[in-house]
Amino acid sequence: MAEKDEVKLLGIWASPFSRRIEMALKLKGVPYDYVEEILDQKSPLLLELNPIHKKVPVLVHNGKIIIESQIILEYIDEVWKHNPILPQDPYERSKARFLAKLVDEQVLITGFVMLAKADEKGREAVVEQTRELIMHLEKELVGKDFFGGKSVGFLDIVAGSMIPFCVARGWEGMGVEVVTEEKFPEFSRWVKNLEKVEFVKDCIPPREKHVEHMNFMGGRARSG
Amino acid sequence: MAEKDEVKLLGIWASPFSRRIEMALKLKGVPYDYVEEILDQKSPLLLELNPIHKKVPVLVHNGKIIIESQIILEYIDEVWKHNPILPQDPYERSKARFLAKLVDEQVLITGFVMLAKADEKGREAVVEQTRELIMHLEKELVGKDFFGGKSVGFLDIVAGSMIPFCVARGWEGMGVEVVTEEKFPEFSRWVKNLEKVEFVKDCIPPREKHVEHMNFMGGRARSG
Repeated sequence: MAEKDEVKLLGIWASPFSRRIEMALKLKGVPYDYVEEILDQKSPLLLELNPIHKKVPVLVHNGKIIIESQIILEYIDEVWKHNPILPQDPYERSKARFLAKLVDEQVLITGFVMLAKADEKGREAVVEQTRELIMHLEKELVGKDFFGGKSVGFLDIVAGSMIPFCVARGWEGMGVEVVTEEKFPEFSRWVKNLEKVEFVKDCIPPREKHVEHMNFMGGRARSG
Repeated sequence: MAEKDEVKLLGIWASPFSRRIEMALKLKGVPYDYVEEILDQKSPLLLELNPIHKKVPVLVHNGKIIIESQIILEYIDEVWKHNPILPQDPYERSKARFLAKLVDEQVLITGFVMLAKADEKGREAVVEQTRELIMHLEKELVGKDFFGGKSVGFLDIVAGSMIPFCVARGWEGMGVEVVTEEKFPEFSRWVKNLEKVEFVKDCIPPREKHVEHMNFMGGRARSG
């Protein structure tokens, strides 16, 4: 199948939502063309392919357009069935999907957007709230190398694209220590495991470039 | 499998998110116990089963707890494979998931919450925005009885639980005509098709009771 497949990904280097699609394609060993979009500029190609949301990532597979990062991950897992991303058991799948939704809809918003907007006084409350959210991930990791068990799966890709590479660096830029090894031993161990995985590392932008970008975004969120 | 299965659903009669789970269970012919929760009151059972979000619906299947309505639908479809809810083709699945997300995250918010909050002047803009969103559904219905084709599928259940039974009645209560047959012939035809499906009808609360409830909720959103 791979020889006839045309796979194109529109993404932005600093977007965790784009990073996770590259991780999934690399995990599956699917060759793809990557088109870098520019933040705050919408290319005619992006507007043509995603007229509803005008956002990356967009996957184009043999002319078919797939949008929304978690939906793209499910699509990739259904088209290329080797090296499964989602667990096979329906209940485990539902847990992975539930926590992935929690990461995207709550950890990101509370932990990064709300923190950036909070004043000195409000900050500790937001940090505490973020920690409570991350505690759900911590519990899930007991006795496992990855959320997916022995290997990287759906929730590793979703959470891994965001934390620690994106959110943690954002926190770092803001001078806030949200996740410590003492409070989150499992989570901290998972971060280290993740950093050893070749295709995950390949998808993560250079640290300094990322910290700089997250500081810029944090400043924008504060003034927004 | 069915004989040994213990299936319990915690829901609220007026919640489209609860209604859709009942639709799915009826479509599959899965017997279940239904536990009615009370709006604004969190029962000890609900708090025990869903401590993170404290929200209905919650599905309990042989002691396993599944949360978030679209995730529950996917779970039901994976456990009971007959009468499929999602399309079989990966691209069609991704489209159904994308539009279902659009319904939950945008149509509901724009069309009901934002409309309820808008003043006379802002109202027309919100109605226009809602119509633009519904136009994406309209296009999808050309030449089809249901989003799922000849029979009710994932997007029918998600959108059908909300529109027209919930949102349309909310609009009606607010005296706003968002969807007309002239502007949305396919969508209007779909509503009529849906109203003929026995298990869909079974899951929809009586019209007058619903209009009254939506007016109450609309009033609350305006003052919220």
